[in-house]
Parts: sequence; structure tokens; C-alpha cells
Amino acid sequence: MTALVGVIMGSKSDWSTLSHTAEMLEKLGIPHEVTVVSAHRTPDLLFQYAEQAEERGLRVIIAGAGGAAHLPGMCAAKTHLPVLGVPVQSSMLSGVDSLLSIVQMPAGVPVATLAIGKAGAVNAALLAASIIGHEFPEYHAALKKFRDEQTQTVLDNPDPRNA
Amino acid sequence: MTALVGVIMGSKSDWSTLSHTAEMLEKLGIPHEVTVVSAHRTPDLLFQYAEQAEERGLRVIIAGAGGAAHLPGMCAAKTHLPVLGVPVQSSMLSGVDSLLSIVQMPAGVPVATLAIGKAGAVNAALLAASIIGHEFPEYHAALKKFRDEQTQTVLDNPDPRNA
Amino acid sequence: MTALVGVIMGSKSDWSTLSHTAEMLEKLGIPHEVTVVSAHRTPDLLFQYAEQAEERGLRVIIAGAGGAAHLPGMCAAKTHLPVLGVPVQSSMLSGVDSLLSIVQMPAGVPVATLAIGKAGAVNAALLAASIIGHEFPEYHAALKKFRDEQTQTVLDNPDPRNA
Amino acid sequence: MTALVGVIMGSKSDWSTLSHTAEMLEKLGIPHEVTVVSAHRTPDLLFQYAEQAEERGLRVIIAGAGGAAHLPGMCAAKTHLPVLGVPVQSSMLSGVDSLLSIVQMPAGVPVATLAIGKAGAVNAALLAASIIGHEFPEYHAALKKFRDEQTQTVLDNPDPRNA
Amino acid sequence: MTALVGVIMGSKSDWSTLSHTAEMLEKLGIPHEVTVVSAHRTPDLLFQYAEQAEERGLRVIIAGAGGAAHLPGMCAAKTHLPVLGVPVQSSMLSGVDSLLSIVQMPAGVPVATLAIGKAGAVNAALLAASIIGHEFPEYHAALKKFRDEQTQTVLDNPDPRNA
Amino acid sequence: MTALVGVIMGSKSDWSTLSHTAEMLEKLGIPHEVTVVSAHRTPDLLFQYAEQAEERGLRVIIAGAGGAAHLPGMCAAKTHLPVLGVPVQSSMLSGVDSLLSIVQMPAGVPVATLAIGKAGAVNAALLAASIIGHEFPEYHAALKKFRDEQTQTVLDNPDPRNA
Amino acid sequence: MTALVGVIMGSKSDWSTLSHTAEMLEKLGIPHEVTVVSAHRTPDLLFQYAEQAEERGLRVIIAGAGGAAHLPGMCAAKTHLPVLGVPVQSSMLSGVDSLLSIVQMPAGVPVATLAIGKAGAVNAALLAASIIGHEFPEYHAALKKFRDEQTQTVLDNPDPRNA
Amino acid sequence: MTALVGVIMGSKSDWSTLSHTAEMLEKLGIPHEVTVVSAHRTPDLLFQYAEQAEERGLRVIIAGAGGAAHLPGMCAAKTHLPVLGVPVQSSMLSGVDSLLSIVQMPAGVPVATLAIGKAGAVNAALLAASIIGHEFPEYHAALKKFRDEQTQTVLDNPDPRNA
Repeated sequence: MTALVGVIMGSKSDWSTLSHTAEMLEKLGIPHEVTVVSAHRTPDLLFQYAEQAEERGLRVIIAGAGGAAHLPGMCAAKTHLPVLGVPVQSSMLSGVDSLLSIVQMPAGVPVATLAIGKAGAVNAALLAASIIGHEFPEYHAALKKFRDEQTQTVLDNPDPRNA
Repeated sequence: MTALVGVIMGSKSDWSTLSHTAEMLEKLGIPHEVTVVSAHRTPDLLFQYAEQAEERGLRVIIAGAGGAAHLPGMCAAKTHLPVLGVPVQSSMLSGVDSLLSIVQMPAGVPVATLAIGKAGAVNAALLAASIIGHEFPEYHAALKKFRDEQTQTVLDNPDPRNA
Repeated sequence: MTALVGVIMGSKSDWSTLSHTAEMLEKLGIPHEVTVVSAHRTPDLLFQYAEQAEERGLRVIIAGAGGAAHLPGMCAAKTHLPVLGVPVQSSMLSGVDSLLSIVQMPAGVPVATLAIGKAGAVNAALLAASIIGHEFPEYHAALKKFRDEQTQTVLDNPDPRNA
Repeated sequence: MTALVGVIMGSKSDWSTLSHTAEMLEKLGIPHEVTVVSAHRTPDLLFQYAEQAEERGLRVIIAGAGGAAHLPGMCAAKTHLPVLGVPVQSSMLSGVDSLLSIVQMPAGVPVATLAIGKAGAVNAALLAASIIGHEFPEYHAALKKFRDEQTQTVLDNPDPRNA
Repeated sequence: MTALVGVIMGSKSDWSTLSHTAEMLEKLGIPHEVTVVSAHRTPDLLFQYAEQAEERGLRVIIAGAGGAAHLPGMCAAKTHLPVLGVPVQSSMLSGVDSLLSIVQMPAGVPVATLAIGKAGAVNAALLAASIIGHEFPEYHAALKKFRDEQTQTVLDNPDPRNA
Repeated sequence: MTALVGVIMGSKSDWSTLSHTAEMLEKLGIPHEVTVVSAHRTPDLLFQYAEQAEERGLRVIIAGAGGAAHLPGMCAAKTHLPVLGVPVQSSMLSGVDSLLSIVQMPAGVPVATLAIGKAGAVNAALLAASIIGHEFPEYHAALKKFRDEQTQTVLDNPDPRNA
Repeated sequence: MTALVGVIMGSKSDWSTLSHTAEMLEKLGIPHEVTVVSAHRTPDLLFQYAEQAEERGLRVIIAGAGGAAHLPGMCAAKTHLPVLGVPVQSSMLSGVDSLLSIVQMPAGVPVATLAIGKAGAVNAALLAASIIGHEFPEYHAALKKFRDEQTQTVLDNPDPRNA
Repeated sequence: MTALVGVIMGSKSDWSTLSHTAEMLEKLGIPHEVTVVSAHRTPDLLFQYAEQAEERGLRVIIAGAGGAAHLPGMCAAKTHLPVLGVPVQSSMLSGVDSLLSIVQMPAGVPVATLAIGKAGAVNAALLAASIIGHEFPEYHAALKKFRDEQTQTVLDNPDPRNA
């Protein structure tokens, strides 16, 4: 089935973060693809990927990167699809550099930024589901089911002293 | 015409930022509504707003707030629509508190966060256009036209020494 | 015996911090209850908890949360009881995000914020004791005894070279 | 009438912030006193003030200070009353130094910290009202009235475009 | 005469900073060109500029940008010339975002980063002079003369009380 | 022999940092004393210590503390001796809170602040030696000898590849 | 009369900060000299100044600088006198860069760091007085008189509402 | 063969970072030398090194240091060669102090600053290659080959799930 969500990342080392995105997309049943595309090492590939994304049928691009993280913003510069940015925790500055490099885009080209690290990676998948949920009711339903279950899990286990 | 985008903000003082969102939605021709809803002063109204947003026909909620900015995250906790968060520049900490309060959501409930202040406010509107662009080709076209024009403006005026 | 202090936290993982609050309340003999209530995953439960707290006999609510920590502030938005906020150390930003999300409340709805992590968790219990100490002299006495003892411990062991 | 809340500050220049505390206490009808007490320039006076506060009938101390702000913490070291700390915006670091100097107290001696600047100053008064509200129902009522009114103000003026 | 240094910037508003680069290049007599090239609004132009820079005879590219500043890094991704990055002071975060977005490049693609704002803009020109100084002794001499003069200015006016 | 330098710290856990001060004083042969004095847990002892320090023959006080580190500043408020502050690395904020709490003293009461952690602890001893070096030439000589040796160590081992 | 304190600064623009040091030294009657010495523009002069300071009769060097502030540390590298560092507020980063560049000296070469800006400049003079106070009782007395007066000023004007 | 690049560092402990510079220079075949030169412990050696670098045939100096990192800037103050600064990760502040101490140079004396830690160390070597590449086509070719290979590596392994 054709991918609706493209998950890209700047290097293989980002997979330990972005795998949480893929896992959640899997759980929600949303067809997706995962690829390494580096803004700095493969800039031409990035432009080609972003330019062709819409005609290839993608509805949303999720881009994760760390440090001077240019991948999400440069991707957004080359497509009209919603681009979701996941700041990967950097080894030196805990992802503050990743976050600011992604979120502080100038007026004109937006990147929808999520939290640093795993939480942001999971949430990028959930946000993608809510973005395509109107067009694809099955993913809206899957999103609703996931969120209802996580609510129920808290309600069922209110005592923090139980493991 | 029914609003497709709901723009909410924590207080009237946030309007000087969020008015840029409304202006851009206007420019793109996207029907929208603007309302003050305070997470801390009118929590019940916020929950009611978020709960009814989807059935009222909204496709996207844009929420702007400053300081300990809880509006976007709490709104996201009560809807399955995409919630876009705009960190308003705070008087003391330049919006760093607003940004972290909005973007660092835990896994399970995402907020699509934009840049601090005016740039983020403008971009929230553009992101909304790209989110609903597949369903409403006229907004996709308007978005494309806006971005083509801003590209052309740079190309036509390459000399920074000319005003 | 009816709880006077309600200790809530955003997720079970916060218990490793908030257990220090419970331990200190125990030590001071103050009746209390502990519950997981998530602002983002169980927003309705949070509102219900906060709304009923006063009539259920609670005098103080202690709320701990990390990251975009909305629990203390949203709790404070729904009660007139004093709400004490404990910023839990976040995995990415050392609790700076937790601290700012809790302490930077807008004028109108206060949260009494403590230090990040264990120190803040212990101190929330001591602050609760001092808040209810006028009404319940036994807790005032317990607080005084605890603080006299910690003073004496320093005075009795002035040499840092002795373990 | 005997003061129930003591408002102290490190220097006269802090009055532009702490005057908001006094104003709100006035509005709530809570008897209070305001004094300049400097941790660094009048340490003995500070100790005397803190030591005698409880026996003089005070229920709460609100202490505001900026920079290396030691006033709230040292006051808390010498009393068992609840001490509320207001970080005053510093000229160089926007109050980040004030905030960290006040909130990061070690386990054993708590300071209930509010937001930096005016918002924190207003909220210190509201928090004081909620702390003494159980003993003095008239201040509980005044607090409730203030909060109901601020809620109503938002509800009555939902359109941010109206001044 | 053919330009040896290309000065590019993300928007016309950056000219108030980068004009200091042009002024210093002027003073040193180094032939240069100045152009607005936006990473986000004119990504194709940026790639074309960077790709052709070396064959057009440029020896150094100086790129200034603010916020999520991707211009220097993306330029560096498409050329083997030395790219010097000038972080422009951003309106919200004083240029911390600009600095981190430029300096924190991953291993493989370097950007030589200068100080935030005017100082960095002036220094980019001086660094360019030192880079091409071995090939063009006249610019080495001009650099030496400039630095000798600034040393002499301090030595001639040691009393800070004289204007 | 009477102590010339008093080394105090807020808790026994600070000894792992301040032991480096004692070790260096030992190495320089400067008579000193080490004691735990807590600003928050033993405020009266602190005031007594600071008040009597000069008449007891101390020439310098070195005070180390972490978090909301009030020990050096409050000590300085009660003596005219030079007070040297060592910010101890805090578990949550890497000592940024300690540093700002110590260095940002208001005009009127100075604390001579050293680096965070071990480097600052070592340097406090060296600074003490230079402060008393004019009066006690033997410590001036010891300081000179130590610094000459550390210079020689670098000169003798210029190759970083040798262990 | 021979200067006992040398006040140096990196550029004339630092005089608006360091003039407060000179003013306070004046007030305390301590003979001093003021000079512009730039670490980066006049490195040889700096080394000569630092090397000759002790034999010229100086007891203390006060060095103020901003940004990448190397003056105090490099001065300390070339003398055994106590070097007091005053971080000048930088135009971009509020002096955070100045503070860290001065205070974070490695073990082996200390700089006694004061607060950013005017407060630090005033306090450098007071710290110098306390350092030389044992040798010169007249400056000890002047310091004591200044501090007694500032204490009395607070005690005489406890009401913040009076100008 | 005569060294073209001089790699210096403040202490042996910096070698774990700067060894990545040496390794990359090795890989590119660029003759270089490595030495420990401390700004604070061997200031005279530093000045001598910087002063003689150009006449000894060096084209570029790479200087790595941590904390209050004065080595790159003071080196730049004594030479007209390009000085590349590598901020070494500090134990307390993750290299933020190193970065600001190196990059925030005042107008007049530039340091080309790279990323904190290993990435910056690798990139300093690549930047040196691009600086001397016009004069030495073999290093330009080596740089191009290295970058082509790293691009190819990404293109050949697009799937992040493969190790």
C-alpha cells in the first residue's frame, strides 16, 4: 500500500529516536516509509525527496534531526505538505540546539515542532494521524482508540505505589 | 461560512501576536473564528470549546499563550483535532518559558509547536492551510500562490542595499 | 482518618520523586492520599479531583509533574486550596522545562513552586505542614521537631571529614 | 488591626514589583505590613523579623528580592511560617538569577516560589489568601469573589478585537 | 574586478548586520559581492549560488542569518569553499538560536562561525582576509595594517576618562 | 597554629568538592580549618562564625555551597573579611543555580566567586594564598613555586599523545 | 601617592561600568590607577602590565571585560596578585558570555569573579578594600564605615512607599 | 615535511577531543603538528607559538580548549593566520562556557568557531583543508573525495533499520 507518511532522519544514529515514530504509525495502521536523508551530506536527495513527496501520495512528512538540525526546515522549504519536526537529543546540549534549529523558523515556511526525543517521536505519529484523520476515518478511529486506552490505563491504576 | 480554523488565545494581550495568524488566514481566504479562552481563568470554557470543536466543523485549532502556557496542551488533551501552539513572547523570559511549556508535551498528546511570537503566528496559519489543503484544493492553491510570491519577491530584489 | 493533603502526579514514573513527599508527610504524621492524575491523559479526572478537593476535606494539594508540566497549574485553576507544585526532573532538559511550566503562572492563579526533584518533593511536605500548622498544632510541633533535629544533626557533626 | 501577612523586600527598588502584592492584599481586605529588610545589608534585622513574625501574629511572610536573592530563603531558615518568594526581575538576567536563587532551596527549608515579577507579586497575595482562607472565611470569600470576577471578565469579552 | 568574497544573507533585514562585513571588506580593498539568498524562500537559488561559487572565482562565502539559521550550513553542504557563518541577533532570543543553528554542524560539513551580530560581521571580513592573505599578499598587508592601527589606537589613548 | 583560612560548606556532601580546597591549602602549607555550617539549617551558627572570624585571626573565608547557595553571601553580610565562594555542582542544574546564587550579589556586599566544582575549589585556595601573600611571604613563595611547577609540567610534556 | 589597585578594562566602552569601581575606590580613599588594556588588541601591553604590577606596588588588579572576556584570566596567568574580574554586560547575551568567560577558569589560575555590570564593579572596589584592609587599617575602617552607613540607611527608611 | 596546520590544545585531557582533528588531517594527508600549549599555565609559550607560526610555514592554527577557553582568542591576538577554535565539552556546563568563550570575540580579532566536541574537532580539519585547498590542489581533491564518499555512504544505505 502506498505510504501516506514519510519518515526521514539525518543519520542512522537518529533511528533510536525515530523508531518510536515508526512503531506508533505501525500501531495505528498508517502506511509509511522510513529513509535516511541528510540535509548536509545528501542535500540534492533531500530536495528531490521533498519535491516529489506530494505527487508520490505522501500526506505528511516527519523529519527528525539533531544539533544544527536543518532537515525539517529545508524539507519544508521544498514542499507544501505539512512537515513535522522531531528534535533529536544531541550529545552535547541535550537537544536544545536541535529544538531551536527546528522551531524558530522565519515567517513564511512553518515546521510543526514536537518535543525533544522519544516523546516527540511518538507524538509526531499521533499528530500525523490527527492530520489525515478527516480524510481517512480509520486512522481517526485508531487515534481515538489509542487515546481512550491510555486514559483508561491511568484510570485503572491510580495508585503510584503499584508497579 | 462555517469556520474551519479556531484561533484561541489566553488573554486579550496575546492578540498583538495572534492577529498575525488571523491576518494570514484572511489572506488565504480560510474561514476562521477568534476567541479569548483562558486555561487558568476559564478552564471549563476551554474544555467545552475543545470538546465541541470537531463536531462544530473545525479542522484545526490554533492556540497561542505565554509564560506557563497551558492552553495548547490542555486543548489537545480534549480533542483529536490537530492543535497548533504559538508561544507568545513573555515579558520576563522572552518566550522561552512559553516555548518549553508548549513544546515539551509528554508522549500521548501532541501539540504542533511554531516559533515564538509573530513568525510563529504567521506560520500557524500557513501550516493550517497545508493541513487542510488536501481536502480543500482552493487553500492549497492559495498557499502555493503565497509561497510562490514570497519566493519571487526575493528573486526580484536581490540587492540588500535597495530598500 | 481523612486526608488533609492530596498528593497527585502526572504519571507513575513521577513516583520516584513524589515518594519523598509521602515519606515526609508520613514522618510528620500528616494524613494524606496519593494518586496518579494526568492533566493530558485524564483531564476530566483532574478537574473532578480539583473541584471536589476542598469539600472532601483536603487543605493542601501537592502536584508533581515533568516536561510541559500542566498538572499543578490546571489544578490551581479549579480550586481555591493552596496548590504546591513540584517540578520533576525531565529526561532531556533536567527539569528546566518542568520548573518554568509550573512557576511562570500568569497573575490570577498561583502555584507555590518548590525546587526541582527530590529536594522540592521533601519541601512540599514541609511547606504543607507549615500551612496547616496554625490549625493543627500537632503538625506545627512535628515540623518544629523535624527542623530542630536537622539543625542539631549539623551542630553535632561539624567535621566534614567524618562520615 | 494586626497584620496577618508581612511583605518584605530587599530594597526600595523592589517596591515597583511588590506594590502589586500590597495592592492585591488591599483588594482582598487582608491586613498586612510592608517593610524593607535586606538580607545582605541588614542581616540582623532580617533574623529578628523572621524570629518574631509568628509571635507577632503573622500567618504568612511574602519576601521579594532580585539577583542573588537570599531574602526569602534566609527568612524561611528562621521561621516556621510559610514563606512565599517573589523573584524580582533583575536588570541583567531578567530574573533567572532571582528565580533560581529562591526556588532551588535544599531539602529541609522550603520557600513557596511564585513567577518572576508582577505576576508573581500578585499571585503571592492570592496564595496568602488561600493559605489563611480556612481560618478566615472572609478572605476565602474575597478570594473566591476575585477569581469569579476574573473568570466573568473573560467570559463577557471573548472577542480579542474589542479593546 | 571579479569578486573573491561572496556575502549572502537570508533577508534584507539582515543587511543592518551584514553591512558591517561589506564595509570592512571595502576598507581592506577586497573585491566582493552582496546578495539576498534565502534558504527557506529561495532554496533553489541557494543551491545554484553555492554550486557555482567556486567556478565563478569566489574564495570565501560569508553567510549571515537569524533564528533557525540554515543558510550557512546548507551553503556549506553544496560547496568546498570555506563558509563563514554570522549569527544575526534574533528579535526573541538575542541570537542564541541563530548561533546554535549555525555552529552546531555535524561532523562532515563545517561552518566557521563568528560572534553574534556586528562583531561577528566585522570579524567575518577580517577572517576572509586572513584566509586569502597567503594567495593575495596585498590583503595580508591590509589586514596587518588594520590590526596595527587598532593596536596603536588603544596604546595612544590609555585613559578611559578621555572621550 | 592558628588558622588563617576558614573553609565552610553547607553540608557534608559538599566535602567531595571542598576537599580539593583543603588539599591545596595543605600543599601550600597554609593553616586552615574546615567546618560544616549550613545557612538554612544552622543560620545562627553561620552568623556567629562570620561575626567572630576576624577576631579569631582568620584572614579569608572560603564558602562552598550548591543549589540556592546562600552560604557565601550571608557570610559576607556578617564580616569584613574577603569571602571566596565556590559553587558546588548541583544534581539538577549542573551548578548554574549555585553559580548565579553566589556571584550575582547586589552592590554593597561582594563575594569573590570561583568556577563551579573542583576547579573552583582548587582555585579558592590559590586565591587565598595570593590574598595573604603580601603579609606572609612564605605563602607567596609557595604559590609561586606551585605555579612555576605547573608551568614546567606543561613545558616538559608538550606531546598530548604521551600519557 | 603610589596606586595600590590597578583598574584595567578591555575598551573605552567598558568605562561606563568600571567607572563605578573607580568611584567607590575614590570614596574609600584607596589610591588607584585606571587604564585601557585590551587582551586582543594589545596583548603585549597586557603581559607587560601584569608582569610589572607587583613590583610597581599594586596589591590588587581589577579587570573588567565583556563578551569573550579574556582580560581577567590572561592577566591572572601573568601575575601572583589577586585578580578581580568584572563581567561587563554584553550587548547580545546580557553578560552571560562575559560571566562564563571570566569565572570558569581551570584549576591552577584563579580569577575572583564579581556580579555582571554595575553591582560587580562597585563590589570589586569593596573586595579590594577587604583584601588590603589588614595591611592598611585605614581602608578597613573606610570599608566598615561604608557598610555601617548602608545598613543605617536601610534601618532609617524601612517604608518602601517613601521615596 | 613541514607542518601546514598547527593543532594546539590547553591540556592533555583535551586530546580525547582534538585527536579527531589529527585523525582527519591524517586521512586528508595534510602535514600537521600537535602540541599542548596552555593559555593560563604557559602564556609566554602561547605568545611565542602564535608569533612564530606564520614564519614557520603554518597556514592554519586549530586551537581547542574548554571552560573559560582563552587559547583560541589569545592565539588569534598574536597572529594573522586563520585561527580555528574547537570548544571542548566541559565537565560542568557541557561546553556552553567553552563555546561562548571562543565564539564571542570582539570586533577586530576573529576566531573561526566550530561545534562543541568531536564534531567540531573533525570539522576543524575539514575547514583547514578547504582554506588551504586553493593553494594545495591535492588537499582540495582529498576534501572532495572525503565528502563524495560520505554522500555515497548515505545514498548506499538509506534504510535506517539496517545496521
